[in-house]
Amino acid sequence: MSIELDQYFKARRELIEKSLDQFLPSEQTYPEKIHQAIRYSLFGGGKRIRPILLLAGYEIFRDDLERAMPFACALEMIHNYSLIHDDLPAMDDDDFRRGKPTCHKMFGEATAILAGDALLTEAFGLMARAGLEMGSDQVGLKAIQELGQAAGLSGIITGQELDLEKQGQVYNEQDLEYISRHKTAALIRASVKVGGILGGAGESELTALSEFGERIGRAFQIVDDVLDFQVGDRDRKGSESDARKKKATYPALLGLSQSRELAKRLSREALKCLEIFSDRAEPLRKIAGWLVAREY
Amino acid sequence: MSIELDQYFKARRELIEKSLDQFLPSEQTYPEKIHQAIRYSLFGGGKRIRPILLLAGYEIFRDDLERAMPFACALEMIHNYSLIHDDLPAMDDDDFRRGKPTCHKMFGEATAILAGDALLTEAFGLMARAGLEMGSDQVGLKAIQELGQAAGLSGIITGQELDLEKQGQVYNEQDLEYISRHKTAALIRASVKVGGILGGAGESELTALSEFGERIGRAFQIVDDVLDFQVGDRDRKGSESDARKKKATYPALLGLSQSRELAKRLSREALKCLEIFSDRAEPLRKIAGWLVAREY
Repeated sequence: MSIELDQYFKARRELIEKSLDQFLPSEQTYPEKIHQAIRYSLFGGGKRIRPILLLAGYEIFRDDLERAMPFACALEMIHNYSLIHDDLPAMDDDDFRRGKPTCHKMFGEATAILAGDALLTEAFGLMARAGLEMGSDQVGLKAIQELGQAAGLSGIITGQELDLEKQGQVYNEQDLEYISRHKTAALIRASVKVGGILGGAGESELTALSEFGERIGRAFQIVDDVLDFQVGDRDRKGSESDARKKKATYPALLGLSQSRELAKRLSREALKCLEIFSDRAEPLRKIAGWLVAREY
Repeated sequence: MSIELDQYFKARRELIEKSLDQFLPSEQTYPEKIHQAIRYSLFGGGKRIRPILLLAGYEIFRDDLERAMPFACALEMIHNYSLIHDDLPAMDDDDFRRGKPTCHKMFGEATAILAGDALLTEAFGLMARAGLEMGSDQVGLKAIQELGQAAGLSGIITGQELDLEKQGQVYNEQDLEYISRHKTAALIRASVKVGGILGGAGESELTALSEFGERIGRAFQIVDDVLDFQVGDRDRKGSESDARKKKATYPALLGLSQSRELAKRLSREALKCLEIFSDRAEPLRKIAGWLVAREY
Protein backbone atom coordinates (compact mmCIF):
# COMPACT_ATOMS: atom_id res chain seq x y z
CA MET A 1 0.00 0.00 0.00
CA SER A 2 1.34 3.51 -0.84
CA ILE A 3 2.09 5.79 2.11
CA GLU A 4 -0.57 8.18 0.83
CA LEU A 5 -3.32 5.52 0.76
CA ASP A 6 -2.13 4.15 4.07
CA GLN A 7 -2.59 7.59 5.65
CA TYR A 8 -5.99 8.03 4.00
CA PHE A 9 -7.16 4.71 5.48
CA LYS A 10 -5.76 5.55 8.91
CA ALA A 11 -7.44 8.97 9.04
CA ARG A 12 -10.76 7.55 7.92
CA ARG A 13 -10.56 4.65 10.38
CA GLU A 14 -9.99 7.10 13.23
CA LEU A 15 -12.96 9.24 12.20
CA ILE A 16 -15.21 6.18 11.91
CA GLU A 17 -14.12 4.67 15.22
CA LYS A 18 -14.64 7.94 17.04
CA SER A 19 -18.18 8.14 15.69
CA LEU A 20 -18.95 4.48 16.42
CA ASP A 21 -17.91 5.12 20.00
CA GLN A 22 -20.31 8.06 20.23
CA PHE A 23 -23.25 6.27 18.61
CA LEU A 24 -23.28 3.35 21.06
CA PRO A 25 -23.91 3.16 24.83
CA SER A 26 -20.77 2.85 26.98
CA GLU A 27 -19.54 -0.41 28.53
CA GLN A 28 -20.78 0.84 31.89
CA THR A 29 -24.40 0.81 30.71
CA TYR A 30 -26.60 -1.70 32.55
CA PRO A 31 -26.64 -4.66 31.94
CA GLU A 32 -22.90 -4.31 31.28
CA LYS A 33 -22.18 -7.71 29.71
CA ILE A 34 -24.10 -7.12 26.47
CA HIS A 35 -22.49 -3.72 25.96
CA GLN A 36 -19.04 -5.20 26.63
CA ALA A 37 -19.70 -7.94 24.07
CA ILE A 38 -20.79 -5.40 21.45
CA ARG A 39 -17.74 -3.20 21.97
CA TYR A 40 -15.35 -6.15 22.17
CA SER A 41 -16.47 -7.21 18.69
CA LEU A 42 -16.90 -3.78 17.14
CA PHE A 43 -13.56 -2.40 18.30
CA GLY A 44 -11.60 -5.57 17.64
CA GLY A 45 -9.42 -4.08 14.92
CA GLY A 46 -11.47 -4.25 11.72
CA LYS A 47 -10.20 -2.60 8.52
CA ARG A 48 -13.45 -0.56 8.20
CA ILE A 49 -13.43 -1.12 4.43
CA ARG A 50 -17.20 -0.81 4.02
CA PRO A 51 -17.67 2.56 5.78
CA ILE A 52 -14.51 3.84 4.06
CA LEU A 53 -16.06 2.87 0.71
CA LEU A 54 -19.31 4.63 1.68
CA LEU A 55 -17.42 7.82 2.52
CA ALA A 56 -15.34 7.56 -0.66
CA GLY A 57 -18.56 7.29 -2.70
CA TYR A 58 -20.01 10.23 -0.81
CA GLU A 59 -17.00 12.50 -1.28
CA ILE A 60 -17.40 12.36 -5.06
CA PHE A 61 -20.37 14.68 -4.45
CA ARG A 62 -19.96 16.42 -1.10
CA ASP A 63 -17.30 17.37 1.43
CA ASP A 64 -19.29 17.32 4.70
CA LEU A 65 -18.38 13.78 5.73
CA GLU A 66 -20.01 14.05 9.17
CA ARG A 67 -23.42 14.09 7.46
CA ALA A 68 -22.79 10.61 6.05
CA MET A 69 -21.11 9.28 9.19
CA PRO A 70 -24.18 7.74 10.92
CA PHE A 71 -24.80 5.67 7.78
CA ALA A 72 -21.13 4.67 7.51
CA CYS A 73 -21.23 3.55 11.14
CA ALA A 74 -24.55 1.71 10.67
CA LEU A 75 -22.94 -0.17 7.80
CA GLU A 76 -19.99 -1.18 9.96
CA MET A 77 -22.41 -2.30 12.70
CA ILE A 78 -24.30 -4.47 10.20
CA HIS A 79 -21.00 -5.96 8.98
CA ASN A 80 -19.92 -6.76 12.55
CA TYR A 81 -23.29 -8.31 13.42
CA SER A 82 -22.84 -10.67 10.46
CA LEU A 83 -19.32 -11.60 11.61
CA ILE A 84 -20.49 -12.38 15.17
CA HIS A 85 -23.32 -14.60 13.92
CA ASP A 86 -21.17 -16.27 11.22
CA ASP A 87 -18.61 -17.25 13.87
CA LEU A 88 -21.21 -19.05 16.06
CA PRO A 89 -20.77 -22.80 16.68
CA ALA A 90 -23.93 -23.57 14.67
CA MET A 91 -22.58 -21.55 11.72
CA ASP A 92 -18.84 -21.46 10.82
CA ASP A 93 -17.78 -22.43 14.36
CA ASP A 94 -14.75 -20.14 14.56
CA ASP A 95 -12.82 -19.69 17.80
CA PHE A 96 -10.70 -16.79 16.57
CA ARG A 97 -11.31 -13.62 14.63
CA ARG A 98 -8.58 -11.06 13.91
CA GLY A 99 -6.29 -13.13 16.15
CA LYS A 100 -8.56 -12.83 19.22
CA PRO A 101 -11.19 -15.18 20.67
CA THR A 102 -14.56 -14.73 18.95
CA CYS A 103 -17.47 -13.04 20.71
CA HIS A 104 -19.15 -16.29 21.81
CA LYS A 105 -15.84 -17.63 23.13
CA MET A 106 -15.51 -14.55 25.33
CA PHE A 107 -19.12 -13.90 26.39
CA GLY A 108 -21.00 -17.13 25.70
CA GLU A 109 -23.30 -18.00 22.83
CA ALA A 110 -26.46 -16.35 24.17
CA THR A 111 -24.82 -12.95 24.63
CA ALA A 112 -23.06 -13.26 21.27
CA ILE A 113 -26.38 -13.91 19.48
CA LEU A 114 -27.89 -10.92 21.29
CA ALA A 115 -24.86 -8.70 20.57
CA GLY A 116 -25.29 -9.44 16.86
CA ASP A 117 -29.04 -8.84 17.04
CA ALA A 118 -28.39 -5.55 18.86
CA LEU A 119 -25.87 -4.27 16.31
CA LEU A 120 -28.26 -5.05 13.44
CA THR A 121 -31.21 -3.36 15.16
CA GLU A 122 -29.28 -0.33 16.39
CA ALA A 123 -27.89 0.20 12.89
CA PHE A 124 -31.40 0.77 11.53
CA GLY A 125 -32.36 2.95 14.50
CA LEU A 126 -29.24 5.07 13.97
CA MET A 127 -30.04 5.58 10.29
CA ALA A 128 -33.64 6.55 11.09
CA ARG A 129 -32.46 9.16 13.61
CA ALA A 130 -29.93 10.54 11.13
CA GLY A 131 -32.57 10.61 8.38
CA LEU A 132 -34.92 12.60 10.62
CA GLU A 133 -32.14 15.09 11.41
CA MET A 134 -31.46 15.56 7.70
CA GLY A 135 -34.90 17.03 7.16
CA SER A 136 -35.63 15.69 3.68
CA ASP A 137 -36.46 12.13 4.59
CA GLN A 138 -36.31 10.44 1.17
CA VAL A 139 -32.54 10.12 1.35
CA GLY A 140 -32.57 8.45 4.76
CA LEU A 141 -35.32 6.03 3.75
CA LYS A 142 -33.54 5.18 0.49
CA ALA A 143 -30.35 4.39 2.40
CA ILE A 144 -32.25 2.18 4.86
CA GLN A 145 -33.99 0.39 2.02
CA GLU A 146 -30.69 -0.22 0.23
CA LEU A 147 -28.91 -1.60 3.30
CA GLY A 148 -32.00 -3.62 4.26
CA GLN A 149 -31.85 -5.31 0.86
CA ALA A 150 -28.12 -5.94 1.02
CA ALA A 151 -28.30 -7.40 4.53
CA GLY A 152 -31.55 -9.33 4.02
CA LEU A 153 -32.89 -12.10 1.81
CA SER A 154 -31.46 -10.53 -1.36
CA GLY A 155 -28.00 -10.42 0.21
CA ILE A 156 -26.06 -11.63 3.24
CA ILE A 157 -28.72 -14.05 4.56
CA THR A 158 -29.19 -16.17 1.46
CA GLY A 159 -25.45 -15.98 0.72
CA GLN A 160 -24.59 -17.39 4.15
CA GLU A 161 -27.39 -19.98 3.91
CA LEU A 162 -26.09 -21.34 0.60
CA ASP A 163 -22.48 -21.15 1.83
CA LEU A 164 -23.46 -23.42 4.73
CA GLU A 165 -25.52 -25.75 2.54
CA LYS A 166 -22.65 -26.21 0.07
CA GLN A 167 -20.03 -26.91 2.75
CA GLY A 168 -18.56 -30.36 2.07
CA GLN A 169 -20.88 -30.75 -0.94
CA VAL A 170 -20.28 -30.73 -4.68
CA TYR A 171 -20.53 -27.19 -6.05
CA ASN A 172 -20.04 -25.40 -9.37
CA GLU A 173 -19.11 -21.93 -10.55
CA GLN A 174 -22.76 -20.84 -10.49
CA ASP A 175 -22.98 -21.67 -6.76
CA LEU A 176 -19.76 -19.73 -6.10
CA GLU A 177 -21.06 -16.72 -7.98
CA TYR A 178 -24.35 -16.84 -6.04
CA ILE A 179 -22.53 -17.06 -2.70
CA SER A 180 -20.01 -14.29 -3.44
CA ARG A 181 -22.64 -11.97 -4.92
CA HIS A 182 -24.97 -12.37 -1.93
CA LYS A 183 -22.66 -12.93 1.00
CA THR A 184 -20.00 -10.34 0.20
CA ALA A 185 -20.69 -8.24 -2.88
CA ALA A 186 -24.22 -7.15 -1.88
CA LEU A 187 -23.06 -5.19 1.18
CA ILE A 188 -19.96 -3.79 -0.54
CA ARG A 189 -22.08 -2.66 -3.48
CA ALA A 190 -24.56 -1.07 -1.07
CA SER A 191 -21.69 0.72 0.71
CA VAL A 192 -20.65 2.58 -2.42
CA LYS A 193 -24.22 3.13 -3.61
CA VAL A 194 -25.43 4.53 -0.28
CA GLY A 195 -22.50 6.96 -0.41
CA GLY A 196 -23.92 8.13 -3.73
CA ILE A 197 -27.53 8.25 -2.47
CA LEU A 198 -26.50 10.41 0.49
CA GLY A 199 -24.34 12.59 -1.76
CA GLY A 200 -27.26 13.26 -4.10
CA ALA A 201 -26.03 11.24 -7.11
CA GLY A 202 -28.25 11.08 -10.21
CA GLU A 203 -29.66 7.84 -11.64
CA SER A 204 -26.80 7.09 -14.05
CA GLU A 205 -24.23 7.92 -11.39
CA LEU A 206 -25.94 5.55 -8.96
CA THR A 207 -25.92 2.81 -11.57
CA ALA A 208 -22.19 3.34 -12.13
CA LEU A 209 -21.44 3.23 -8.39
CA SER A 210 -23.60 0.16 -7.95
CA GLU A 211 -21.91 -1.74 -10.81
CA PHE A 212 -18.50 -0.67 -9.55
CA GLY A 213 -19.38 -1.91 -6.04
CA GLU A 214 -20.70 -5.25 -7.27
CA ARG A 215 -17.45 -5.94 -9.13
CA ILE A 216 -15.01 -4.92 -6.43
CA GLY A 217 -17.17 -6.81 -3.93
CA ARG A 218 -16.79 -10.00 -5.94
CA ALA A 219 -13.08 -9.35 -6.54
CA PHE A 220 -12.60 -8.75 -2.81
CA GLN A 221 -14.10 -12.16 -1.96
CA ILE A 222 -11.94 -13.95 -4.53
CA VAL A 223 -8.77 -12.25 -3.28
CA ASP A 224 -9.71 -13.18 0.29
CA ASP A 225 -10.17 -16.80 -0.77
CA VAL A 226 -6.83 -16.78 -2.62
CA LEU A 227 -4.98 -15.33 0.39
CA ASP A 228 -6.55 -17.92 2.72
CA PHE A 229 -5.81 -20.74 0.28
CA GLN A 230 -2.11 -19.84 0.20
CA VAL A 231 -1.77 -19.80 3.97
CA GLY A 232 -3.00 -23.37 4.42
CA ASP A 233 -4.74 -25.09 7.31
CA ARG A 234 -5.21 -21.98 9.47
CA ASP A 235 -6.44 -18.84 7.78
CA ARG A 236 -4.95 -15.37 8.25
CA LYS A 237 -7.27 -14.68 11.18
CA GLY A 238 -6.08 -17.71 13.18
CA SER A 239 -9.16 -19.81 12.45
CA GLU A 240 -9.46 -23.08 10.63
CA SER A 241 -9.15 -22.27 6.93
CA ASP A 242 -12.00 -22.48 4.43
CA ALA A 243 -10.14 -25.27 2.63
CA ARG A 244 -10.06 -27.40 5.79
CA LYS A 245 -13.75 -26.72 6.35
CA LYS A 246 -14.40 -27.82 2.76
CA LYS A 247 -16.06 -24.51 1.95
CA ALA A 248 -16.93 -23.58 -1.61
CA THR A 249 -14.15 -21.23 -2.84
CA TYR A 250 -12.81 -20.05 -6.19
CA PRO A 251 -9.22 -21.27 -5.71
CA ALA A 252 -10.46 -24.74 -4.76
CA LEU A 253 -12.60 -24.94 -7.91
CA LEU A 254 -10.61 -22.96 -10.50
CA GLY A 255 -7.09 -23.00 -9.08
CA LEU A 256 -5.03 -20.01 -7.92
CA SER A 257 -4.02 -18.60 -11.27
CA GLN A 258 -7.50 -18.59 -12.82
CA SER A 259 -8.95 -17.10 -9.61
CA ARG A 260 -6.40 -14.28 -9.71
CA GLU A 261 -7.25 -13.62 -13.35
CA LEU A 262 -10.96 -13.41 -12.52
CA ALA A 263 -10.31 -10.95 -9.68
CA LYS A 264 -8.18 -8.80 -12.00
CA ARG A 265 -10.81 -8.82 -14.71
CA LEU A 266 -13.53 -7.79 -12.25
CA SER A 267 -11.28 -5.04 -10.93
CA ARG A 268 -10.61 -3.68 -14.45
CA GLU A 269 -14.35 -3.69 -15.17
CA ALA A 270 -14.97 -1.93 -11.86
CA LEU A 271 -12.53 0.87 -12.68
CA LYS A 272 -14.20 1.33 -16.07
CA CYS A 273 -17.51 2.06 -14.28
CA LEU A 274 -15.86 5.07 -12.61
CA GLU A 275 -14.81 6.72 -15.88
CA ILE A 276 -17.83 9.06 -15.79
CA PHE A 277 -16.53 10.67 -12.58
CA SER A 278 -13.92 13.42 -12.12
CA ASP A 279 -10.81 13.38 -9.94
CA ARG A 280 -13.11 13.37 -6.93
CA ALA A 281 -13.46 9.60 -7.45
CA GLU A 282 -9.68 9.18 -7.05
CA PRO A 283 -9.93 7.72 -3.50
CA LEU A 284 -12.49 5.18 -4.71
CA ARG A 285 -10.19 4.21 -7.61
CA LYS A 286 -7.20 3.79 -5.30
CA ILE A 287 -9.16 1.67 -2.81
CA ALA A 288 -10.33 -0.57 -5.65
CA GLY A 289 -6.75 -0.99 -6.84
CA TRP A 290 -5.55 -1.88 -3.37
CA LEU A 291 -8.36 -4.37 -2.69
CA VAL A 292 -7.20 -6.56 -5.57
CA ALA A 293 -3.45 -6.04 -5.26
CA ARG A 294 -3.28 -7.07 -1.58
CA GLU A 295 -0.27 -9.14 -0.53
CA TYR A 296 0.35 -11.35 -3.56
CA MET B 1 -63.79 -13.37 24.94
CA SER B 2 -67.03 -11.83 23.59
CA ILE B 3 -68.20 -13.03 20.16
CA GLU B 4 -67.78 -9.47 18.89
CA LEU B 5 -64.14 -9.20 19.98
CA ASP B 6 -63.46 -12.72 18.78
CA GLN B 7 -64.70 -11.75 15.31
CA TYR B 8 -62.69 -8.51 15.36
CA PHE B 9 -59.51 -10.50 16.17
CA LYS B 10 -60.25 -13.09 13.51
CA ALA B 11 -60.87 -10.50 10.79
CA ARG B 12 -57.70 -8.59 11.68
CA ARG B 13 -55.62 -11.77 11.83
CA GLU B 14 -56.75 -12.71 8.34
CA LEU B 15 -55.90 -9.26 6.98
CA ILE B 16 -52.47 -9.33 8.61
CA GLU B 17 -51.65 -12.86 7.47
CA LYS B 18 -52.66 -12.10 3.90
CA SER B 19 -50.34 -9.09 3.89
CA LEU B 20 -47.47 -10.98 5.55
CA ASP B 21 -47.76 -13.58 2.82
CA GLN B 22 -47.51 -10.87 0.14
CA PHE B 23 -44.58 -9.05 1.74
CA LEU B 24 -42.28 -12.09 1.87
CA PRO B 25 -40.77 -14.28 -0.89
CA SER B 26 -42.52 -17.62 -1.47
CA GLU B 27 -41.25 -20.97 -0.16
CA GLN B 28 -40.18 -21.82 -3.69
CA THR B 29 -37.61 -19.00 -3.72
CA TYR B 30 -34.00 -20.20 -3.97
CA PRO B 31 -32.43 -21.28 -1.60
CA GLU B 32 -35.74 -22.81 -0.44
CA LYS B 33 -34.75 -23.92 3.07
CA ILE B 34 -34.37 -20.43 4.55
CA HIS B 35 -37.69 -19.31 3.11
CA GLN B 36 -39.39 -22.44 4.43
CA ALA B 37 -37.95 -21.80 7.90
CA ILE B 38 -39.17 -18.18 7.87
CA ARG B 39 -42.69 -19.15 6.81
CA TYR B 40 -42.84 -22.12 9.17
CA SER B 41 -42.21 -19.77 12.09
CA LEU B 42 -44.18 -16.79 10.88
CA PHE B 43 -47.31 -18.74 9.96
CA GLY B 44 -47.21 -21.02 12.98
CA GLY B 45 -50.44 -19.76 14.52
CA GLY B 46 -49.53 -16.61 16.43
CA LYS B 47 -52.23 -14.42 17.96
CA ARG B 48 -50.93 -11.33 16.08
CA ILE B 49 -51.54 -9.18 19.16
CA ARG B 50 -48.86 -6.62 18.33
CA PRO B 51 -49.98 -5.79 14.77
CA ILE B 52 -53.61 -5.82 15.96
CA LEU B 53 -52.65 -3.26 18.61
CA LEU B 54 -50.88 -1.14 15.99
CA LEU B 55 -53.96 -1.15 13.77
CA ALA B 56 -56.24 -0.40 16.75
CA GLY B 57 -54.05 2.61 17.61
CA TYR B 58 -54.11 3.70 13.98
CA GLU B 59 -57.90 3.45 13.59
CA ILE B 60 -58.41 6.07 16.30
CA PHE B 61 -57.25 8.52 13.64
CA ARG B 62 -57.75 7.01 10.19
CA ASP B 63 -59.75 4.32 8.41
CA ASP B 64 -57.37 3.32 5.61
CA LEU B 65 -55.81 0.33 7.36
CA GLU B 66 -53.85 -0.83 4.31
CA ARG B 67 -51.61 2.25 4.67
CA ALA B 68 -50.48 1.03 8.11
CA MET B 69 -50.27 -2.63 7.10
CA PRO B 70 -46.55 -2.78 6.11
CA PHE B 71 -45.66 -1.45 9.56
CA ALA B 72 -48.05 -3.87 11.30
CA CYS B 73 -46.43 -6.73 9.38
CA ALA B 74 -42.91 -5.47 10.11
CA LEU B 75 -43.80 -5.47 13.80
CA GLU B 76 -45.00 -9.07 13.62
CA MET B 77 -41.81 -10.03 11.77
CA ILE B 78 -39.70 -8.43 14.52
CA HIS B 79 -41.74 -10.28 17.17
CA ASN B 80 -41.26 -13.60 15.38
CA TYR B 81 -37.52 -13.04 14.93
CA SER B 82 -37.25 -12.57 18.70
CA LEU B 83 -39.20 -15.79 19.34
CA ILE B 84 -36.97 -17.84 16.99
CA HIS B 85 -33.79 -16.54 18.64
CA ASP B 86 -35.19 -16.85 22.19
CA ASP B 87 -35.98 -20.53 21.55
CA LEU B 88 -32.40 -21.38 20.48
CA PRO B 89 -30.46 -23.92 22.59
CA ALA B 90 -28.03 -21.21 23.76
CA MET B 91 -30.97 -19.05 24.92
CA ASP B 92 -34.17 -20.54 26.40
CA ASP B 93 -33.57 -23.94 24.73
CA ASP B 94 -37.21 -24.63 23.86
CA ASP B 95 -38.18 -27.60 21.71
CA PHE B 96 -41.79 -26.55 21.23
CA ARG B 97 -43.60 -23.32 20.43
CA ARG B 98 -47.37 -23.11 19.94
CA GLY B 99 -47.47 -26.91 20.23
CA LYS B 100 -45.11 -27.47 17.29
CA PRO B 101 -41.33 -28.10 17.11
CA THR B 102 -39.37 -24.84 17.24
CA CYS B 103 -37.62 -23.47 14.15
CA HIS B 104 -34.17 -24.87 15.06
CA LYS B 105 -35.69 -28.29 15.79
CA MET B 106 -37.16 -28.36 12.28
CA PHE B 107 -34.44 -26.65 10.23
CA GLY B 108 -31.30 -26.76 12.35
CA GLU B 109 -29.69 -24.03 14.42
CA ALA B 110 -27.83 -22.26 11.61
CA THR B 111 -30.92 -21.78 9.48
CA ALA B 112 -32.96 -20.75 12.55
CA ILE B 113 -30.43 -18.04 13.43
CA LEU B 114 -30.49 -16.85 9.81
CA ALA B 115 -34.32 -16.97 9.64
CA GLY B 116 -34.47 -14.70 12.70
CA ASP B 117 -31.83 -12.37 11.25
CA ALA B 118 -33.75 -12.26 7.97
CA LEU B 119 -37.09 -11.40 9.60
CA LEU B 120 -35.47 -8.57 11.58
CA THR B 121 -33.69 -7.17 8.53
CA GLU B 122 -36.62 -7.52 6.15
CA ALA B 123 -38.88 -5.76 8.68
CA PHE B 124 -36.79 -2.61 8.42
CA GLY B 125 -36.54 -2.88 4.63
CA LEU B 126 -40.32 -3.23 4.41
CA MET B 127 -40.89 -0.12 6.54
CA ALA B 128 -38.42 1.89 4.44
CA ARG B 129 -40.20 0.90 1.21
CA ALA B 130 -43.58 1.77 2.73
CA GLY B 131 -42.22 5.10 4.02
CA LEU B 132 -40.97 5.99 0.53
CA GLU B 133 -44.36 5.15 -0.98
CA MET B 134 -46.08 7.42 1.55
CA GLY B 135 -44.44 10.48 0.01
CA SER B 136 -42.67 13.24 1.83
CA ASP B 137 -43.67 13.32 5.49
CA GLN B 138 -41.40 11.98 8.20
CA VAL B 139 -43.81 9.36 9.43
CA GLY B 140 -41.92 6.37 8.00
CA LEU B 141 -38.62 7.35 9.63
CA LYS B 142 -40.32 8.01 12.97
CA ALA B 143 -41.90 4.56 12.90
CA ILE B 144 -38.55 2.93 12.08
CA GLN B 145 -36.86 4.87 14.88
CA GLU B 146 -39.53 3.81 17.38
CA LEU B 147 -39.40 0.12 16.49
CA GLY B 148 -35.59 0.24 16.36
CA GLN B 149 -35.58 1.50 19.93
CA ALA B 150 -38.11 -1.04 21.16
CA ALA B 151 -36.27 -3.95 19.52
CA GLY B 152 -32.76 -2.75 20.35
CA LEU B 153 -30.66 -1.96 23.40
CA SER B 154 -33.46 0.07 25.04
CA GLY B 155 -35.85 -2.86 24.68
CA ILE B 156 -35.94 -6.54 23.73
CA ILE B 157 -32.17 -7.11 23.71
CA THR B 158 -31.34 -5.90 27.21
CA GLY B 159 -34.57 -7.46 28.53
CA GLN B 160 -33.60 -10.88 27.18
CA GLU B 161 -29.98 -10.44 28.34
CA LEU B 162 -31.03 -9.73 31.94
CA ASP B 163 -33.67 -12.47 31.82
CA LEU B 164 -30.91 -14.96 30.96
CA GLU B 165 -28.50 -13.54 33.53
CA LYS B 166 -31.10 -13.81 36.31
CA GLN B 167 -32.08 -17.39 35.48
CA GLY B 168 -31.45 -19.52 38.56
CA GLN B 169 -30.14 -16.45 40.41
CA VAL B 170 -31.53 -14.35 43.25
CA TYR B 171 -33.70 -11.54 41.89
CA ASN B 172 -35.91 -8.77 43.24
CA GLU B 173 -38.91 -6.77 42.06
CA GLN B 174 -36.65 -4.19 40.41
CA ASP B 175 -35.10 -6.89 38.22
CA LEU B 176 -38.55 -8.16 37.27
CA GLU B 177 -39.71 -4.70 36.35
CA TYR B 178 -36.59 -4.14 34.24
CA ILE B 179 -37.08 -7.45 32.42
CA SER B 180 -40.82 -7.00 31.76
CA ARG B 181 -40.43 -3.37 30.68
CA HIS B 182 -37.64 -4.18 28.23
CA LYS B 183 -38.42 -7.69 27.05
CA THR B 184 -42.17 -7.37 26.58
CA ALA B 185 -43.59 -3.92 27.27
CA ALA B 186 -41.19 -2.00 24.98
CA LEU B 187 -42.45 -3.66 21.79
CA ILE B 188 -46.12 -3.59 22.88
CA ARG B 189 -45.82 0.09 23.74
CA ALA B 190 -44.18 0.75 20.37
CA SER B 191 -47.01 -1.14 18.63
CA VAL B 192 -49.65 1.24 19.94
CA LYS B 193 -47.46 4.32 19.58
CA VAL B 194 -46.49 3.56 15.97
CA GLY B 195 -50.21 3.20 15.22
CA GLY B 196 -50.58 6.77 16.51
CA ILE B 197 -47.51 8.04 14.62
CA LEU B 198 -48.81 6.64 11.34
CA GLY B 199 -52.30 7.97 12.08
CA GLY B 200 -50.97 11.51 12.62
CA ALA B 201 -51.52 11.74 16.41
CA GLY B 202 -50.44 14.93 18.20
CA GLU B 203 -47.82 15.03 20.98
CA SER B 204 -50.24 14.57 23.91
CA GLU B 205 -52.06 11.79 22.07
CA LEU B 206 -48.78 9.99 21.43
CA THR B 207 -47.88 10.28 25.10
CA ALA B 208 -51.25 8.81 26.09
CA LEU B 209 -50.85 5.91 23.64
CA SER B 210 -47.31 5.30 24.78
CA GLU B 211 -48.24 5.22 28.47
CA PHE B 212 -51.22 3.00 27.72
CA GLY B 213 -48.99 0.60 25.77
CA GLU B 214 -46.34 0.47 28.50
CA ARG B 215 -48.96 -0.55 31.08
CA ILE B 216 -50.80 -3.16 29.09
CA GLY B 217 -47.42 -4.51 27.96
CA ARG B 218 -46.38 -5.02 31.58
CA ALA B 219 -49.81 -6.44 32.51
CA PHE B 220 -49.61 -8.81 29.53
CA GLN B 221 -46.29 -10.23 30.75
CA ILE B 222 -47.58 -10.71 34.29
CA VAL B 223 -50.75 -12.47 33.08
CA ASP B 224 -48.59 -14.72 30.87
CA ASP B 225 -46.44 -15.59 33.88
CA VAL B 226 -49.53 -16.29 36.01
CA LEU B 227 -51.06 -18.56 33.36
CA ASP B 228 -47.78 -20.48 32.97
CA PHE B 229 -47.34 -20.75 36.73
CA GLN B 230 -50.78 -22.33 37.11
CA VAL B 231 -50.16 -24.96 34.44
CA GLY B 232 -47.06 -26.37 36.15
CA ASP B 233 -44.00 -28.14 34.73
CA ARG B 234 -44.89 -27.71 31.06
CA ASP B 235 -46.09 -24.32 29.93
CA ARG B 236 -49.12 -23.69 27.70
CA LYS B 237 -46.98 -23.93 24.59
CA GLY B 238 -45.72 -27.43 25.39
CA SER B 239 -42.28 -26.29 26.57
CA GLU B 240 -40.61 -26.60 29.91
CA SER B 241 -42.22 -23.96 32.14
CA ASP B 242 -40.49 -20.82 33.38
CA ALA B 243 -40.81 -22.12 36.94
CA ARG B 244 -38.88 -25.29 36.07
CA LYS B 245 -36.25 -23.21 34.30
CA LYS B 246 -35.97 -21.06 37.45
CA LYS B 247 -36.77 -17.92 35.48
CA ALA B 248 -37.48 -14.63 37.23
CA THR B 249 -41.29 -14.24 37.27
CA TYR B 250 -43.84 -12.23 39.26
CA PRO B 251 -45.85 -15.22 40.59
CA ALA B 252 -42.65 -16.89 41.84
CA LEU B 253 -41.63 -13.72 43.71
CA LEU B 254 -44.96 -12.17 44.78
CA GLY B 255 -47.37 -15.12 44.65
CA LEU B 256 -50.39 -15.53 42.36
CA SER B 257 -52.82 -13.23 44.12
CA GLN B 258 -50.47 -10.23 44.37
CA SER B 259 -49.38 -10.73 40.75
CA ARG B 260 -53.02 -10.69 39.61
CA GLU B 261 -53.62 -7.51 41.59
CA LEU B 262 -50.63 -5.83 39.96
CA ALA B 263 -51.86 -6.79 36.48
CA LYS B 264 -55.32 -5.41 37.27
CA ARG B 265 -53.90 -2.15 38.59
CA LEU B 266 -51.74 -1.69 35.48
CA SER B 267 -54.75 -2.43 33.31
CA ARG B 268 -56.91 0.15 35.13
CA GLU B 269 -54.15 2.75 34.75
CA ALA B 270 -53.85 1.84 31.06
CA LEU B 271 -57.55 2.40 30.42
CA LYS B 272 -57.35 5.78 32.16
CA CYS B 273 -54.72 6.87 29.60
CA LEU B 274 -57.31 6.36 26.85
CA GLU B 275 -59.87 8.75 28.38
CA ILE B 276 -58.81 11.58 26.08
CA PHE B 277 -59.97 9.56 23.05
CA SER B 278 -63.45 9.19 21.55
CA ASP B 279 -65.34 5.98 20.79
CA ARG B 280 -62.81 5.36 18.04
CA ALA B 281 -60.51 3.96 20.77
CA GLU B 282 -63.14 1.34 21.69
CA PRO B 283 -61.25 -1.57 20.01
CA LEU B 284 -58.09 -0.61 21.90
CA ARG B 285 -60.07 -0.53 25.19
CA LYS B 286 -61.59 -3.95 24.53
CA ILE B 287 -58.25 -5.51 23.61
CA ALA B 288 -56.75 -4.13 26.83
CA GLY B 289 -59.61 -5.58 28.85
CA TRP B 290 -59.19 -8.98 27.21
CA LEU B 291 -55.40 -9.09 27.64
CA VAL B 292 -55.77 -9.00 31.41
CA ALA B 293 -58.94 -11.08 31.77
CA ARG B 294 -57.57 -14.08 29.82
CA GLU B 295 -58.53 -17.52 31.14
CA TYR B 296 -58.54 -17.00 34.87
